[in-house]
Amino acid sequence: MIMNNEFMLKALQIAEKSGDDIPVGAVIVKNNKIISQFHNEKEKRSDATAHAEILAIREASAVLNNWRLENCDMYVTLEPCPMCLWAIIQSRIKNLYFGAYDTLTGGISTLPQMISISGSKLNIKGGIMEQECNIILRRYFENLR
Amino acid sequence: MIMNNEFMLKALQIAEKSGDDIPVGAVIVKNNKIISQFHNEKEKRSDATAHAEILAIREASAVLNNWRLENCDMYVTLEPCPMCLWAIIQSRIKNLYFGAYDTLTGGISTLPQMISISGSKLNIKGGIMEQECNIILRRYFENLR
Repeated sequence: MIMNNEFMLKALQIAEKSGDDIPVGAVIVKNNKIISQFHNEKEKRSDATAHAEILAIREASAVLNNWRLENCDMYVTLEPCPMCLWAIIQSRIKNLYFGAYDTLTGGISTLPQMISISGSKLNIKGGIMEQECNIILRRYFENLR
Repeated sequence: MIMNNEFMLKALQIAEKSGDDIPVGAVIVKNNKIISQFHNEKEKRSDATAHAEILAIREASAVLNNWRLENCDMYVTLEPCPMCLWAIIQSRIKNLYFGAYDTLTGGISTLPQMISISGSKLNIKGGIMEQECNIILRRYFENLR
């Protein structure tokens, strides 16, 4: 599947609804259709594992009744953390498109060897609509102060 | 809290109930009491994120109504994968005790820098009841053949 900015725009719209949580949105696409979409719900669910990507993977697996999300792509507004990156790898998602980079704790930026350790064929492309993805994060953190 | 083999024995008993899933059991302990316990349910739930550790963290967070699992310890029969290790770090579990080592894809064995990247103070001790934890895994994989 070819990358489609429309899906990153959708992930951004979902991120905007994160409420008290850090605004991150993720959508999973199969055959050019969104099969799951979530924003970060860590605070809302009181659950450190409730990142947008994990929730989206769980829902997509339920939709497909299969943990193998083959031929599925994920669009997420922020570079996944190591937890989410390993979950994406394990779920066999084909293409990962992310927006803003997280050079401090992002899985790809800080632990690039994760891909080779896993033997995964995951394709990764970062910086999609990077500016827009950065702006909603900055706005959130500015409002916190 | 001091390490207590009794809790690893419990994790082993839970691992034995994993059915078709790779036998891994995890318990979370607070004030010397088990507050959550799960085995791996990846196949059962058709969900690549349904590792014993993730399920146990989610349940413990629900029990405490808090994603911060402070002063909680985890006992798990197998070295956590990178997804689970990052989840354990993020949930602020205090002590991680694991049984069998996983030198191929274990988070600690393959990505030891995860701890420093996260700035976590997690204490980790591996090889607890290592032989017993290895035996149930070996038995599972032998039966597959």
